[in-house]
Amino acid sequence: MLGMMTSVNLAEKLSTFSEHFKPRTIGQFNGHDLMVVKVKGEFVWHSHQDTDDFFLVLKGRIRIEMRTGAVELGPGELFVVPKGVEHRPVAVEEAHVLLIEPTGTPNTGAAATAAPRVVI
Amino acid sequence: MLGMMTSVNLAEKLSTFSEHFKPRTIGQFNGHDLMVVKVKGEFVWHSHQDTDDFFLVLKGRIRIEMRTGAVELGPGELFVVPKGVEHRPVAVEEAHVLLIEPTGTPNTGAAATAAPRVVI
Repeated sequence: MLGMMTSVNLAEKLSTFSEHFKPRTIGQFNGHDLMVVKVKGEFVWHSHQDTDDFFLVLKGRIRIEMRTGAVELGPGELFVVPKGVEHRPVAVEEAHVLLIEPTGTPNTGAAATAAPRVVI
Repeated sequence: MLGMMTSVNLAEKLSTFSEHFKPRTIGQFNGHDLMVVKVKGEFVWHSHQDTDDFFLVLKGRIRIEMRTGAVELGPGELFVVPKGVEHRPVAVEEAHVLLIEPTGTPNTGAAATAAPRVVI
């Protein structure tokens, strides 16, 4: 149940780790993992063939680069990368993001290179 | 596409309407509607047999009452009501919330009493 009968404070969850690009699962919803992640620097270019990719910035700023252009996001701004669209998140300074992906989706688009899913 | 190749500023979307308990769809993700809603007062008791119910508070405070207890949420706090669990959101002062539900889910649990889905 991942403690889902209590509320989840996103900032509190984010305070428990410091690594970048290592999402932590903080809940589940309709077969999806709800995750918080700290990002800084450039992630790898990747795409997900079977799922859209949800980003909501909680703190800081990120840029989601796609081959056709880029989207800039600040706190309280969200963007959904449609499935199959190649992209990479980039952050100059550390940013905190809420991610939603189907449970088990590799964050790099490929199981061999993905960060393990860690529930906190 | 609901403008999904541009970012969505949640506060900006919320500034465009004032009614309570009338969600606005601001994006889509894996067959779900991403919605913002203003809540104040008591919503009706209801449940969704086929879907979990995602709440992330953006501003203010809400209480999600269930028959077995209640969860209090402030800004940056989320809660997922598991499918089938009867609940009602309550807010003493106006609060702003991000909701995620499968596209077409009636917000009251029943089509006859649901608010229409409005895309902004």
